Parts: sequence; structure tokens; C-alpha cells
Amino acid sequence: MMEAQKILLLLLLCLNLVSSLVIAGAPPTCAANLDSKCADSDEWKGEFFPGIPKIKYEGPSSKNHLAFKWYNPEEVILGKKMKDWMRFSVAFWHTFRGTGSDPFGVPTKSWPWEDGTNSMAMAKRRMRANFEFIDKLGVDFWCFHDRDIAPDGETLKEANANLDEVVALAKELQGTKVRPLWGTAQLFSHPRYMHGAATSSEVAVYAYAAAQVKKAMEVTHYLGGENYVFWGGREGYQSLLNTDMGREIDHMANFFESAAAYKKKIGFKGNLLIEPKPQEPTKHQYDWDAATAANFLRKYGLINDFKLNIECNHATLSGHSCHHDIETARLNGLLGNIDANTGDPQVGWDTDQFLTDIGEATLIMLSVIKNGGLAPGGFNFDAKLRRESTDVEDLFIAHIVGMDTVARGLRTAAKLIEDGSLPELVRKRYQSFDSEIGQKIEAGKADFEMLEKKAMEWGEPKVPSAKQELAEMIFQSAI
Amino acid sequence: MMEAQKILLLLLLCLNLVSSLVIAGAPPTCAANLDSKCADSDEWKGEFFPGIPKIKYEGPSSKNHLAFKWYNPEEVILGKKMKDWMRFSVAFWHTFRGTGSDPFGVPTKSWPWEDGTNSMAMAKRRMRANFEFIDKLGVDFWCFHDRDIAPDGETLKEANANLDEVVALAKELQGTKVRPLWGTAQLFSHPRYMHGAATSSEVAVYAYAAAQVKKAMEVTHYLGGENYVFWGGREGYQSLLNTDMGREIDHMANFFESAAAYKKKIGFKGNLLIEPKPQEPTKHQYDWDAATAANFLRKYGLINDFKLNIECNHATLSGHSCHHDIETARLNGLLGNIDANTGDPQVGWDTDQFLTDIGEATLIMLSVIKNGGLAPGGFNFDAKLRRESTDVEDLFIAHIVGMDTVARGLRTAAKLIEDGSLPELVRKRYQSFDSEIGQKIEAGKADFEMLEKKAMEWGEPKVPSAKQELAEMIFQSAI
Amino acid sequence: MMEAQKILLLLLLCLNLVSSLVIAGAPPTCAANLDSKCADSDEWKGEFFPGIPKIKYEGPSSKNHLAFKWYNPEEVILGKKMKDWMRFSVAFWHTFRGTGSDPFGVPTKSWPWEDGTNSMAMAKRRMRANFEFIDKLGVDFWCFHDRDIAPDGETLKEANANLDEVVALAKELQGTKVRPLWGTAQLFSHPRYMHGAATSSEVAVYAYAAAQVKKAMEVTHYLGGENYVFWGGREGYQSLLNTDMGREIDHMANFFESAAAYKKKIGFKGNLLIEPKPQEPTKHQYDWDAATAANFLRKYGLINDFKLNIECNHATLSGHSCHHDIETARLNGLLGNIDANTGDPQVGWDTDQFLTDIGEATLIMLSVIKNGGLAPGGFNFDAKLRRESTDVEDLFIAHIVGMDTVARGLRTAAKLIEDGSLPELVRKRYQSFDSEIGQKIEAGKADFEMLEKKAMEWGEPKVPSAKQELAEMIFQSAI
Amino acid sequence: MMEAQKILLLLLLCLNLVSSLVIAGAPPTCAANLDSKCADSDEWKGEFFPGIPKIKYEGPSSKNHLAFKWYNPEEVILGKKMKDWMRFSVAFWHTFRGTGSDPFGVPTKSWPWEDGTNSMAMAKRRMRANFEFIDKLGVDFWCFHDRDIAPDGETLKEANANLDEVVALAKELQGTKVRPLWGTAQLFSHPRYMHGAATSSEVAVYAYAAAQVKKAMEVTHYLGGENYVFWGGREGYQSLLNTDMGREIDHMANFFESAAAYKKKIGFKGNLLIEPKPQEPTKHQYDWDAATAANFLRKYGLINDFKLNIECNHATLSGHSCHHDIETARLNGLLGNIDANTGDPQVGWDTDQFLTDIGEATLIMLSVIKNGGLAPGGFNFDAKLRRESTDVEDLFIAHIVGMDTVARGLRTAAKLIEDGSLPELVRKRYQSFDSEIGQKIEAGKADFEMLEKKAMEWGEPKVPSAKQELAEMIFQSAI
Repeated sequence: MMEAQKILLLLLLCLNLVSSLVIAGAPPTCAANLDSKCADSDEWKGEFFPGIPKIKYEGPSSKNHLAFKWYNPEEVILGKKMKDWMRFSVAFWHTFRGTGSDPFGVPTKSWPWEDGTNSMAMAKRRMRANFEFIDKLGVDFWCFHDRDIAPDGETLKEANANLDEVVALAKELQGTKVRPLWGTAQLFSHPRYMHGAATSSEVAVYAYAAAQVKKAMEVTHYLGGENYVFWGGREGYQSLLNTDMGREIDHMANFFESAAAYKKKIGFKGNLLIEPKPQEPTKHQYDWDAATAANFLRKYGLINDFKLNIECNHATLSGHSCHHDIETARLNGLLGNIDANTGDPQVGWDTDQFLTDIGEATLIMLSVIKNGGLAPGGFNFDAKLRRESTDVEDLFIAHIVGMDTVARGLRTAAKLIEDGSLPELVRKRYQSFDSEIGQKIEAGKADFEMLEKKAMEWGEPKVPSAKQELAEMIFQSAI
Repeated sequence: MMEAQKILLLLLLCLNLVSSLVIAGAPPTCAANLDSKCADSDEWKGEFFPGIPKIKYEGPSSKNHLAFKWYNPEEVILGKKMKDWMRFSVAFWHTFRGTGSDPFGVPTKSWPWEDGTNSMAMAKRRMRANFEFIDKLGVDFWCFHDRDIAPDGETLKEANANLDEVVALAKELQGTKVRPLWGTAQLFSHPRYMHGAATSSEVAVYAYAAAQVKKAMEVTHYLGGENYVFWGGREGYQSLLNTDMGREIDHMANFFESAAAYKKKIGFKGNLLIEPKPQEPTKHQYDWDAATAANFLRKYGLINDFKLNIECNHATLSGHSCHHDIETARLNGLLGNIDANTGDPQVGWDTDQFLTDIGEATLIMLSVIKNGGLAPGGFNFDAKLRRESTDVEDLFIAHIVGMDTVARGLRTAAKLIEDGSLPELVRKRYQSFDSEIGQKIEAGKADFEMLEKKAMEWGEPKVPSAKQELAEMIFQSAI
Repeated sequence: MMEAQKILLLLLLCLNLVSSLVIAGAPPTCAANLDSKCADSDEWKGEFFPGIPKIKYEGPSSKNHLAFKWYNPEEVILGKKMKDWMRFSVAFWHTFRGTGSDPFGVPTKSWPWEDGTNSMAMAKRRMRANFEFIDKLGVDFWCFHDRDIAPDGETLKEANANLDEVVALAKELQGTKVRPLWGTAQLFSHPRYMHGAATSSEVAVYAYAAAQVKKAMEVTHYLGGENYVFWGGREGYQSLLNTDMGREIDHMANFFESAAAYKKKIGFKGNLLIEPKPQEPTKHQYDWDAATAANFLRKYGLINDFKLNIECNHATLSGHSCHHDIETARLNGLLGNIDANTGDPQVGWDTDQFLTDIGEATLIMLSVIKNGGLAPGGFNFDAKLRRESTDVEDLFIAHIVGMDTVARGLRTAAKLIEDGSLPELVRKRYQSFDSEIGQKIEAGKADFEMLEKKAMEWGEPKVPSAKQELAEMIFQSAI
Repeated sequence: MMEAQKILLLLLLCLNLVSSLVIAGAPPTCAANLDSKCADSDEWKGEFFPGIPKIKYEGPSSKNHLAFKWYNPEEVILGKKMKDWMRFSVAFWHTFRGTGSDPFGVPTKSWPWEDGTNSMAMAKRRMRANFEFIDKLGVDFWCFHDRDIAPDGETLKEANANLDEVVALAKELQGTKVRPLWGTAQLFSHPRYMHGAATSSEVAVYAYAAAQVKKAMEVTHYLGGENYVFWGGREGYQSLLNTDMGREIDHMANFFESAAAYKKKIGFKGNLLIEPKPQEPTKHQYDWDAATAANFLRKYGLINDFKLNIECNHATLSGHSCHHDIETARLNGLLGNIDANTGDPQVGWDTDQFLTDIGEATLIMLSVIKNGGLAPGGFNFDAKLRRESTDVEDLFIAHIVGMDTVARGLRTAAKLIEDGSLPELVRKRYQSFDSEIGQKIEAGKADFEMLEKKAMEWGEPKVPSAKQELAEMIFQSAI
């Protein structure tokens, strides 16, 4: 046993050194007390992205890879500036902790500013890179997990101290304009969370997760973050055979209640957001999709305390179009934020690609416009470079095409709205419900006996064409 | 236009003749006024299934295809007779209106008692066949759609009269023991319902559907039915481009409210059940899965008026295991009935096969036992012969293997419960929550500050193995 | 038994009347000797599409639903007229025999020229409608199944006579310009084919199928058809438990050998095309995808006698992008024709929608351009109106948006090729293989010992970025 | 740039330390020159699995988790010992290099013999653990990747030397009975292979891969391995936009030709096996499924030089049942080996679970029996513990349940064969082809004219029931 503990210690020590390289979507947690061999405590000198200018709008005819063709931040569309419709955010974990590793391969990226450690010095250097990136890209928001931006500690206390130190630097670097779209706690990578965090079978893990969320909420608030997100990567099961699903979901509700209470306590005004995902890493996650999350919130009386963060690739993995899940969130009064990415329709896992499909972007923007925008939410680029994309400029190219796609979606949606023929087609389909009897039905005043009488009186209903192909033609013509 | 109307009339006339052959899962509706050529008004003489004896239990070693090997109705398992755990029901539409047609092929069945018409005489003859089948199979329940058991009429009034006449015969044939597990209205086959019934864009269709449900509820009540089911085959959309999803779902809620009110009015005591399905025929149905239906019921204040009818093949089409969706229904207090069938894991549509997988049946029965049984619900065989199975005896073989499979699931589940090692494995996983702090959490009395203090105090949590492979070994050994 | 036969006869009789309404994708076969009640032997007078003009090109800014915005037949793109790149074809079965029925619903269309029968008179009237449609749409090709264009007979001889009579009319109506892109035999709807045609377990069915293909090949040849297609809708299995897959596939090879021999015998010069599909109606079809079909052709020595007809919705059902399966066919020298349609990425069955995605159309056209066009193949619109689209003009709108989409794909592909940066990006990725050693490898002259020596000599290889996001940016910018 | 290189070096150094922990299915490659802090050069003392006895057969009624209930190695079934039907093999990578990491989490396993390094000492210690495990489990075979069993080197030469040293130990530990079922080269984890190995866009990577396969083939041969496997994890594409698929597949063929030539040169008599997989890690792999691999082998004239290794979870990911792909391999004369695992039918990635489904195991064994066994192939457990299974005994439990499941499949299959009613059902289905005309067709001597004559003569074919439900009943009764 002594032997085993010694080995575990060694193992954890080594883990510290390289765990940051392990997982693209989910950088693990590491202690900062690195030995001198790997650590590089020097502050980085000079620019991180020396060849890259501030990205400017050059219009659709530009061939410049490092320019926007469709996103023109100050341009007013449907009465609002593009940047206010979009509220684009850079995801720290993908952009600065993504390594290109996957279940069958080790990291492929070797960014010039990385020294391969998870030291405090490296954490600070990365934060500087982050803000240079944000500045050059011209966005106002960023998103982060606690353990991505600062190294873990050997104790929770140490981890918190590390986090405070990095957050202080971030606060300073943010300036007056930039702030987090949202912060969150990373509750899925560390082995302690293997059975879940709020839904772990171990009470001590539940407590640990609570402490971590408490702290993450505090620093998000401190940084002026506008939302706080819960993604339950491990809140689910691998097999129902060894799982007490009822008890686990009850615990999840207890956890969320406490989170909502703590938010009030510290005076954080931002939205609390649940991010649904059907599966991966677990076989089945409890926040499967927007409707499942809504049911959970209603069941436990939390419906007014939370909204949803809809991620497109999560929606498609759950069998819905992205547009569907955004609409479901909207119709339940829960549309809080969008994680703008896309999946591969022939692939059964989360590929987190940058969205490049103009049609899909248009559908998304039609919903966002109906919602009156997303604020205090926005569009977070929860998207990563392909493992094989290893140039620093690829980071910019990917964000530019992602931003341009959403921008083009907004322009197309605006065109559709201004043209009016598509909305009119929909309005007319339902006009029979604008009649007296229709209004009665909608007011809940039409009982079955009255309706039967009407049905007898009216005879066989006339049912017109749904004109779907015409709707598709109008839609496509706007692109 | 006159021309078109004439043609439409002719078309409807012809439809009457053979529409009953068209669709296995969904026999269409037809008027009874057949011309003399096709109709055969004689009552059927003698037995429908002359070579088939009453199906008896012969035990696992029997090689008799027309005997039960595992289902022994009067045998007591875990304190209850098998037949009371099961409450098996024959689905009239698959067994007596299923024709073997599919999207690429015309009907293949030619049962000796069928004359190819949808006449009243034929409807009555079929009803006699149904009760002989039920008697020989030894079950107490049956399920039906209104338009399956009686021909449609040229007017709603005529359709209702047809229904009444056939229902009167069914009442007589039922005797004292047999009754409907549930009845329902068929609101998806007729062109009038192409845009939905409760969610149609046409108010007249909404009214027509209400009238049809009103009548179907009345006859279900009259026949002593124990539940009433809503399957919203067309309550969904083909494209969001031409759909006002919000307005449609509001209408669906209005409709269900009226249904619940009418149930009370007529004194029907059975459960109202919603049957979720993710898609097919529509691209996206509003009752996608158990959680989605639960959210809908909660949102509109209907949660105490409805329960769910979970169909295994629908669950798997929505990306869940059947066991998962049954558990989700159970944990939401909504498990009302099970449509016992199965799909093909490599096929993306509803194959409605008879369940033959013992493992799956065991998981289902573990949930049913936790639920204390399903009554007043039961197991309805919403399952059909393959298109290529064309012998009359195939109808019996399929039901026998389906019943034996569920029975074997019950026996295996009982074995697991009596052995105790699997439940014990699960109980022990969560025992840390039986501690004082665990109890506080579960009582909603543990705030983040207290939990943080505990986390600091406890240090790194110990997290044991989940023992999934052991659980699988125990599970498999019981089969 | 006499009873059963009588009933079967009655049943078949009734079937004749309405079977044409049953199945959208697959009109069934019926005898022409209709009784006077339903039949309408009068020839149709006047126009079929009175309000619809000849469809003209009006350019992208047109708002006219009945005009082309992108398809300008005589315009030259990359050295070839658009119409010669496209070779668009109307699918008779979807456009003139599609009824809107689906597995859960009866027909919804009631075209003014239809009298609800499957009579010879109706067959001829429909053929006239077909050619008016083709003329107004401005295409040169059509595709047909034998049993769609002419009623089945009580005997094969009668069926052949019916077919001859309708084909004679078609020949006359075709004029000098229009001809079939391909013909085929419908071997999946009739009950006799329920176990397959060439792979049926019954030798008499094999013979019947052979006779039907023989005749269909003859009339395709007679009409000047440029290809002949085999889609094996029932050539597969529902369960391996009752199937001798090896024997069935051997029979399929025997069948195709005889078909190739008969083609030579009658001097038909067109291509024989196999159309892969993974499943539906069967659980598993033998021509799963392009690679599977290619393996079959190679195994049985048929690789030089057949090419493939790739259908986009079939490709996506088999887990590939449409682009992938087209490229697989092309790289195996087998790209013969494209069935231009699309599926719903969240739906697990063949939806046969008209393609409206510009990105997908562009990818398809990139392959077609690499292939030097498709002639003697082309683009067949194996696509159907949604069940809920019931206006006559919807038939035109759907084809127009489908044609415009492919046309826009061609324009975008041409832009990408003329711009050159995407092809150049690809060329450069592989340039290390243009080296001496690369050439040796490609010539099959580099053995492992030589390569090991080189690997030792070269040390760790340098591996550049794949630039996928840049490729996506360039691609999207061209749209 | 100097900076970047320095960082890359540091990064690689750190990688060495812990890369072994990174990826369950795919341990990465590392140099052995570890610093003294992490390395532990001591040989391991005593037993690795002290509490675990030799696993014995105790029969179905045993409740002992560490005993076989169905696998009785010396028992004769259908004329052959169980162990000779099975030829079970332990997969070194999952069992000894699997760490429990996944795309969202770091390693969870801390086996007592692991010191967290990838040193030579550790490699040897692990090899000793491997052989103790094999001995206690009672199997005769193991499978390995080169880079799993020995640390990578800074140069290929050093890596080869490391491999030789570990292989020498393995040879010694193997004794006279144990040997590799197969060996293989790991060509997917290292960044150099990110664009593929044989299909990399870089010629130097192609050469490196050739050198690695050459060496792996040599050591497999030296150890008495009975097969050599190629799994092309990176031989595919992420996007067709930046890929020259034709050139890549040509390169793959060149590579396989050289491999077959080198096999002959060194006198290796074992089978070369290609392992199909549809996707993951790449979006699309070139060896998609059995039929795709067969087409590739035929196209390039390699059909006699390779067989296939079918993995169940890969088959289901490609849209087939495992049984289907095994049968496809068998019917193409290519069934060489089976990777015995299973996936989750609701999950879209490779879960590599131990097979526990008796029905699936029975289907597999029906094919294996038809194939006359698998030798020189066998059943390799390409299966891993769930991430949450962290006890040493879980390794045994998982293998035991996996072996018992396949053994139970054999027993059930034998029962079905001895009972005879299922094979007889199938034989009778096709008996019409045993007629004179059937024999002519099968001999390729039936032309369309002769068949048409027969069809005319015979009239409408009689088509009997396919009896699928009966087949399912018989199948299930045998379990």
C-alpha cells in the first residue's frame, strides 16, 4: 500500500507537467509547483502574434484571409449594430489550451509561447496571449474554465490562490471594454469527477464541486462576467445497471438550488446558464437537450433561476437541428446564449468545428432576431481548430470564418425579414385561427362539445398546400 | 373545378374500397357504403383460426411453436401473478389491419377472413376474429383506433354511427373479462390531418380532431377501457421554415386541456396517456421523448392529468435506450403504459418488431417492478409481423415469442432481485450520502459555504471503482 | 381454401382500382380492365398546366417563383453549356405517380388530370401531362419504371402489351429532342417480390424478374434511352437468421451477367447502372454503397459492364456525404449518373427532397467537373414534393429550385476553379510525392528496406498544417 | 524560431514522462532516456496480481466472480475443444496501457505496478505483468503495438533498439505455449502521423511508416506471431476540401504491396490482416467496412495477400450488425480474425466494451462455425475497462465475462446446429433453386429469353412466408 501511494504521488507529479497538453476541449488541472527543468518563469517579451494585424472589415470581394468579408461591427442591421447582435466571445480553452490531442493521438500544436508546462508563469503568459488575440480579432468577450486559466493546486486552497493570481492579471489586462461573456468551473477532467460532480456517488466530490463552483462564480463576478455556465460533462451515466438515476438527479437539483442561492448572496446579476448535451463523455447526460433541461428546471422549481446555453453541435448530437433546439429554448423563455459551432452530420461525436454553413447561420439568426438578441448572452466560439491545423494563423482564420458566417447569417436573415414574403407565408398558414372560434380555442374557451358541433356544421375541412418548397426557394434566394 | 371535384369524389369512393389495405401501422378511414361487387355482407361461419389451439404454458423445454415456454399466467412471481404484472394487450391495428404494405410495396397479407373491403360486415367479421385471437392467446386486453375497428363515413355523423355499431358488437363479444387496455382516435392517416390534428394550421381540422377524440373517449369508456392514448403522429413539423412552432404547441396544450376536462365530464376514470415519438412520419414530433412530453405537461399545468405510454422503438429512435425512457417516465411519476416492441439498432425508422431480446426485457421489468407494476396500464403489443410473414400462424408465433420474452424478463429480474447482489452494489455506491452531511444536502440544507468548508477539511476525495463490468457479469449470469 | 382464393381475387381486383394511389416512391402494378364506375376513358382535353408558362431564366434578382435565377441552359461555363453539364431529367414516378402517401397516411394529392384509376386511358393522359411538364420546364430527359407508366396485367403478356401501347405514345410525344435518361423495371412493389427479385428465394420470381427486365430494357432501347438502371430495393434481407446471403448474392451476379449479355444481344449501347442504397425497405441491401457495389462487380467479373447511379440521399443514409460516394464512384471509374436529391441529416429514412443546399451542390459539381461531365448520364430528379405540398404549381417550384441549386453549384465550382487557390492548396499538400522518391513509391518501386534507409537518413519528418479552415474559408467565400 | 524549437524539445521531454497515461486505445510513443526523478529502474518484486488465483471453470451455477461459468477450455464442442474454437487473446494496449483518459478527462487508473513513466524498466515490468495476467486468465495469445510495449526513441534507431530489448524479454517470458495472435505498428498517435501514415501527404512520413511496419513485422515473426494487422486509424480524411483522395488511396495500395513483398522476403507465414473501421479519429477512413476493404484489395490486385480483422464495434459504427460484417468477410473469403468487443447502440463512437450480449455472441459463433474456426486467427479482446472501473480485479472480471459470453455463444450456436430446425428452415426457403432451372441459373446458363419463356409458362409465382418470427423464436429458445 505504501508502494501504491508512492506511485500515485509520482504519477500526480508527472501529471502536473503535461496534463495541459492532454485534452483539447478540456484542459486538466495541475499544480503549479513545477521543478525548474520544465518551468519557464520568464515573462514573455514582445508580441505573441507578430505577423497578424488587427482584423478589419474589407467587404465580400476581399481575398485577404486576415480580413472580415461580412462582419462589420459598427454597421447597423435591423436597428442594431452587428457587434451588439453578435457579442462574439473567444473560448479560452479551445484557443489557448487546445492541443490537438484526440482519443487516438497526442498533442500536435506547439505554439511559440508555450513551454509545455502548466506553471503560473505559463498561465500568465497565456493570458497575455489571450488578450492580444482578443484585441486583434476585435471582440469584447471571452469565456473560461477555472482550471484552464490557472493551474490546479495540491489543495483546494492552493488552487484558489493560483486562480486569484491569474484572475488579477486578467482583470488588469481586460481594460474597460473586454469582459467575460461567461465563466465556469471545470468539473469533468480530474479523476475525482469520474462519477460526476453534482451527481457523483461520493458526497465528498459533491462538496468539492460546490466549493469549486463557488469560487468560479466569485471570480466571474469579479471580472465583470455577464453569465455563469454549467456544463455537466460527467452528470450522467455510463450504465443504468450501476446507477441510481433518481437519486443522482435529485442531487443535481440540490446543487443548482444552492448555486442560485449563492448567486443572490454575492450579488451576481448575470444569468446562470445550463448547457445541454446528450452524451459524450458519458453514455447519457442528464441535460440531454433543451426540453430535457427545461423539464428538470420546472420539476425542481428552478425555471426562473436558470436559462440555457445552446450549443449547435450538442443539438445535432441529440437528434435535433440546431435551429430546433434554439427555438425550443426560446419558446420556453430560456434562450440565454449560443455556443456557435457545428458538427459533422455523418459523425457521432462532438467535433466542435467552426460554423461555416450560411444556411444554418441564417436559421440561427432568425431565432436570435425573434428573441430580440441574446444579451446578456452572446455567441461564444466553442470551436476548435482541426488537429491537423497547426499554424498560429489558423487560429485567426478559423475565428474569422466563424464570425463572417454568423454575420452573413444575420445579413441573410435581415434580407428575408425585409423582403417579408417568408414571414407572410407563415402568417397566412395560420390565419384561420385568427377567426372567432380560433380565438376562443386559443383563450382556452372551446370545449369538445362546442368543437364537435362546429365540426358537424362545417363538414370536411379544406386543407391547403404547406408550400414547403416555395419556402425553401425564398430562403435559398436570400443567400 | 367541377372536374376536379368529381375526380376527388371518385377518388374517395375508390379509397373506401381498399384503403384498409394501405397502411400497416395506420389503417386509413373509409365509408361503409360499398358497392355490391366488393362487399361481402355475410357473417363469417365457423372458426377463424381453425388449426390453432388455445395457447398453453408448456415450460422452457417445449419445442411446440404454439405454446408458452416462459409465460405461465397464474404463476406467482414476486408476490403477484404473471398475468397481473403483464396485463398483455393485442393491438387491433397491427394484428387485424396490418397489411404488409410499406413505402415501397403494396400489401402482402391475404388473411382468409378478409374480403378486401372496408365494409361494416367486414368490420364485424374482423372483430369476431379479434376476440377469437384474444381468447386463444389467453390475454385480457386489446387496444384500438376508432377508424381501424369501424369504417369512416362520408360525414362525421355517419362515421360515428358506424363506430357505435361495431362497438356494440365488441361490447357483446368482450364478455365479462376482456376489455380495452386503451382506445384512441386515429388522427394521422386522412389527408385532412396532413398538417397535424391539434396542431394543424386549420381551425376546422382542430375542431374535427376534437370531435373525433370526444367520440373515441366515449366509446373507450363504454367498453370499460382502462386508459385513453394520444399519439401525435402528425403533431410536429416537416420544416421550421413554414411552421409557427410556438403557436402550434400552444394549440396542442389547449386541445389536451379540453380533453382532460371532457374526461372528467363523462366520468371516465382511466388514465390519459401521451405516447412520445421523436419523428416519423413528421421530421420532428412535439412529443419527442418522455422528458420533452413531461416538460410540455409541466409548462401548461397538465402534469397531473396525463401519464405517458412509452414505446421501446420510439425511445431508441430518440437516441435513448428503452430502459432509459421508461425510467425517465417513472422518475417523473408518469409511467402509465408500455408499448412492448423493439426496433433494429441499425435502422432509422420505426420497425415495430416483437421484442425478442431477453436482456432488454429484463431491464424493462426491473423498472416495472420498481413502479409496482403498470396497472391500470399494461403491455400493449404495438408490434407487427414482418412484411414477408404471411401465414396465419405467424400472428400467433409472433405474439407468443413476444409474451415469452417479457415473461422471461420478469423471471430474470426476479432472480436478480432475489439474489440481491446487483441492488446491493448500487446501494453501496451511494452510501456516502446516507451520512449526516449527505442527508443535509438531500434535504436542501447544505449551502455552498458550508460545503466549501467541508471540502477544505476533507481534502482530496477517495473515489472507488464503479464496478460496471461486475454489474454486467451479475446481470448476464441471471439470464 | 376456395374461399381464400375467392377473397384473394376480390382483393386483387380492388387493388387495381386504387393501388396507384398507394405509394409515392413506388407506384404498384395494376391490371387495366377496370370497371366502368371508376375508369374514365376519355382523352384529356386541353392543357394540363394552364396557368404555368414556359420556365425562363431571369437571373438572380428575379422574384418570380416560376423562373430560373441561376440555370441558364445555353450559357457556357468552363467550356460547356449549362444544359450539357446538367442533362436534367424528370422522374416520372415521383412527379406523376407520387401521391403523398406515407407509412402513416393515405394519398394527399389530387391532380386535376387524375381520375383515381390505373387504367390505360389514365396512363396515356398522364404521359401527355409528363411531356407538357418536360416541355414547360425545358429539360430534355425523363426516367421511368415500367409499371409506373403502364398498368400491370393479369398476365405478364398482358402487362407487356399495356407497356407497348403506352411506350408507343411516349415515343410519339417525345419528338426528336426528348428521350429517357434511363428506364428501369419496378421489382419491389408487388408481393411476388417481397423476398427480392434477383435474390428471391423462389426461382419463379427470379425468372419473372428476368422477363420484366428484358422487356424494360427493350422499351428503354426503343425510346432512345441513354442508360438502364438497377435499383435493388428488395435485394437484401430483413434478418440474417432466415437468409442464405451467399446464395442470394451469387444469384444477383447471375442475374446481372444475363442482363449484360442481353444488352449486347439487342445492341443497346447505353450504360447499365447499379444504384446503391444501404437500406429501406429492407434492413440491409446488398448494394449498400458505391464501394460495396464496386466490390460486387469486381468479385463477379462485371466491373466493365456496369457503372453506378449515385443518389445523394442514399449516400447519406449509408453514413457518407454525397460528395464522398460520388468521388468513390469516380475513383473506381464507375460514376455514371447522379440522382439529385437530398435527405434530412436528422432523419433515418429516404426523404427524397429536392436539393436546395448550395454548398452540397458545389461539392457535387466539383466532382462532376473532374469527371468531365456525366454523359451519357445526367442529373435525375429522384425527388418528390412533401406530402403536404398539394398545389400543381408546387411541382414546378420544386423542380425549379432543384435545378437552380445544381446550377448555382456549377457556377460556384467554376468560380473556385477559376480562382485557383483551393486546387493549389491541395496540389501543394502532396508536392513531396513529386520528388524522386515519391515517384518511385508511386511507381511501385520502393521496397521497405529502401524506405527504412531513407527514414533513418531523413530523421523526424516535418509535417505542415492541413489548412482545413482556410480551405473552408475559400470554399465559403465562393458561394 | 530557436525559441520554438527549444520549447518543442521541452515539450517532447515532458511528453515522455506521461504520454503513457494519455490515451487508452492508443498509447503514444516516448523516448526512454528519463531523468532519475520519475524513472524507477528496479525490477518489480513478487506477484502483480497477488489476490487473484488462476481462473478456473466452475460451471453456470457458480457465483464466483473470478471463475468461468461457461468457458471450459478443454471441453469439446462440435468436435473441437473450446479453446481451439476461441483462441482468445489479451490486447496489451487496453489492458496494460489503457489509462482511463478520454477526450474530456485525464487518466483514472493507477495500477500498483505503474510508476508513471514510459521508461525501459517500466516497459519490462509491464511485460511481466502481462504474462502473469495471461497465465492466470489461461489464454495462449496476446496482441501488441510496437510503441505500446517499448518506449519510442529520439531516433528510429533508438526506438528499434528499445523494441528489440523488450521483445527479447517477451520472448523469454512467453515460454513455449504463449505467442502473439498478432502484432502491429502504432501509426496514429504521434503528430508525424496526423495526416496519415501510408496516406500522409508527406513522403517522409510514408517512409517512416514503412520502416516502422518493417520492424514490427520482424518482431512479430520473431515472437512466433500468427498474424500481422493493419489498422489505418489516420488513413482517411477530415475534409475532402483539402484532400486528394485518389492519390492517397493509390499510396495506400503501394504501401500494402510493399508489405506483402516484405512478408515473403522474411518468410513470415502468418496472415496479413486489414482491420476496417468507418471513422474515428478521422471523419472518414478508407477501410470503411469489410466490403470497402475487399473492393480496395480487388482493385489493386491484393485480394490473395490479405484477410480482414473484423471488430464488432467498428462494424456497428459503419451501420452494419457485427454479424453482417463477419459474414461479408467470410463470403469474400477474407475472414481472418475477430476483435471481440461491442459498442453502445446509442453511442456514435468506439466504446470498445467487453461483449456481454449472448445473442450477439451466438450470431458471431454461427459464422465462425461456418468458417471452420478462425485459425490462424482468433478472438482478440480489443476491449477496455470503463474509465470508472479502477480496481485491479476489474481487469479480470471484464475478461472473464467477455470470454464467458463468447463461450456461451458457442454453446448456443452448437445447440442450434444440433437441434437443426433453424438451418432446415433456411435450407427449405431456397429449395426451388435446387430444381433443374435453378441449377441452370446458378451455373450461369440461364439467359433472359429462356427465363422469360419460363415466366410466361409458370404464371404468377407462389411466394411463401419468410417465417422470421419463427426463426427468432427458435433462436431465442436456444439461449
